[in-house]
Amino acid sequence: MSDQNRQILLRRRPQGLLAPDDVELVTSPMPELHEGEALARNLYLGMEAAMRNWLTGSEGGYMEPVAIGDVVKGSSVSEIVETRCDAYEVGDIVTSLGNWQDYVVCQDDILTTKVARDVEPQRYLSLYSSAGVTAFLGMELGAPNEGDTVLVSAAAGGTGSIAGQIARIMGAGRVVGIAGSDEKCTAAVEQFGFDSCINYKAGDLKAQLKDHCPKRVDVYFDNVGGDILDVVLGGIAPRARVVLCGAIASYLEGKLPGPRNYTNLMSREATMTGFITFNHWDRFEEIFGRLRGWADDGRIRVREAVFDGLERCPDALNSIFTGGNIGKAMVKL
Amino acid sequence: MSDQNRQILLRRRPQGLLAPDDVELVTSPMPELHEGEALARNLYLGMEAAMRNWLTGSEGGYMEPVAIGDVVKGSSVSEIVETRCDAYEVGDIVTSLGNWQDYVVCQDDILTTKVARDVEPQRYLSLYSSAGVTAFLGMELGAPNEGDTVLVSAAAGGTGSIAGQIARIMGAGRVVGIAGSDEKCTAAVEQFGFDSCINYKAGDLKAQLKDHCPKRVDVYFDNVGGDILDVVLGGIAPRARVVLCGAIASYLEGKLPGPRNYTNLMSREATMTGFITFNHWDRFEEIFGRLRGWADDGRIRVREAVFDGLERCPDALNSIFTGGNIGKAMVKL
Repeated sequence: MSDQNRQILLRRRPQGLLAPDDVELVTSPMPELHEGEALARNLYLGMEAAMRNWLTGSEGGYMEPVAIGDVVKGSSVSEIVETRCDAYEVGDIVTSLGNWQDYVVCQDDILTTKVARDVEPQRYLSLYSSAGVTAFLGMELGAPNEGDTVLVSAAAGGTGSIAGQIARIMGAGRVVGIAGSDEKCTAAVEQFGFDSCINYKAGDLKAQLKDHCPKRVDVYFDNVGGDILDVVLGGIAPRARVVLCGAIASYLEGKLPGPRNYTNLMSREATMTGFITFNHWDRFEEIFGRLRGWADDGRIRVREAVFDGLERCPDALNSIFTGGNIGKAMVKL
Repeated sequence: MSDQNRQILLRRRPQGLLAPDDVELVTSPMPELHEGEALARNLYLGMEAAMRNWLTGSEGGYMEPVAIGDVVKGSSVSEIVETRCDAYEVGDIVTSLGNWQDYVVCQDDILTTKVARDVEPQRYLSLYSSAGVTAFLGMELGAPNEGDTVLVSAAAGGTGSIAGQIARIMGAGRVVGIAGSDEKCTAAVEQFGFDSCINYKAGDLKAQLKDHCPKRVDVYFDNVGGDILDVVLGGIAPRARVVLCGAIASYLEGKLPGPRNYTNLMSREATMTGFITFNHWDRFEEIFGRLRGWADDGRIRVREAVFDGLERCPDALNSIFTGGNIGKAMVKL
């Protein structure tokens, strides 16, 4: 085992995408374990849009911002390699807040969860992860009725691709995606079972929305906010449910204009609701169980966009915003 | 009885407030009654913000726009003065779509409802009216819990003044208003029982909101939209309910920017819902009964802002937007 721990530290607050000089890859000595601690080697690091917010240092999030000089924060699936903690044995697989580094010190606390070894470890960052829970909770709130039209933004992404499949399982009549390239639209339809998918970069979104959702939108799973949310609000059906699961559009550019078409919430007697996945810790176990059932039955297919090596972390995080991948972005160490 | 019917016709679509030349007061011959019709003399004409929208000719409302040359549309409480319809006797009081004129022809249809004579007729435009139903439905959706802080915009207006009192009846812990003058704030507190009222013209709304709602806002009854909605979204409590009952701010100026703080619906896990009062015709009877009970018990106090004479209709309608009155605006003929 190495006696060095490579880490990526935040050097300055990024403007827009993460720039090379915003972070620095350093080599630190391996941490020493105290009683009650275990050392875990990070196998995969998960990339989530919210992480970008933690770098900005803005208030009001559910996680403390990353301080300048600290290791960049992020989720991980990791293997215990040394232990002074009764909760973990060497060889255990855990999900944790492993951060952008090779090794992390874990304790027996809420941040670290021992997981089953009969699942490929990367699945703990894609399906059995905050992405999977977000997809589930969003669809639970949207509650598609039999036959409803469900629209999902970022449909080829780690969350949207699962949300669309859950909508189908819940009985939606028509599941339509929105994505940013023809390749992603093809993946949404062919791999994730969407009925159709709108490439919002390929033409007027309003007109495409009418084509793809001729009976308007009953449930909108919103991952992105911004202009897309506004256009979709223009096309909601009576008693529609708009579920706000993220606002990627605002993470890089700061607060965007609000959706002018919010007034349709009145004329269509519709509802817009939001939630924070991490407020629902107490349900993760139950939800993972359901997702596992659907995955085992072949009703949910998952795809991961794997970047290779710690030094690719900035690229992997940026890819969420530039829309480079299909499936859940992660880094393999 | 006169053999003339004075009417106010729409001559051109207004820009902003209704200007003198937008309408014309004409004298028409009294309509002739056919079998199944009754003639009613309008006693009071109700003024509602939505009427202004019907003059603009914009699509998407729940009522056909008023055509150029037609009588301006609006609600009325009227007395039957001549009848060839079995449903009505001379002397009956009805609520109807009487429009801006002295006399209206009624039929036995959904537009006209015979009402009890033991209530002052103007109450059928203030409390037992769409304003009262809007206040009720809005609070039903907002569903204040015991002890909640409920905030009501246009608190001295025909709808807001009732909404605040219903919030109190439903168990709200703190009922706070927003209004546009000290006089209206005083009325909200002294006549309508609000705990306090913010004069949004008297200083920074955000700071005042913090003062008046130290535990943030659990339920917001939104009558106005625009900047006020945006600021309030900045101050909502976890699991808040924002109920959209109107967007006066947008009726005159067209579509306004959306509320940038809608993202707080996510971080506070809150809900924003809207409704159209007239979609709930089937519940009017039930709701009027409840309002009557509360009014009879002295738990709801109502105030009317009465303008005198048909020619005052434009002023009365404009007063809703310039914020000139306390209570429900109406014209006495």
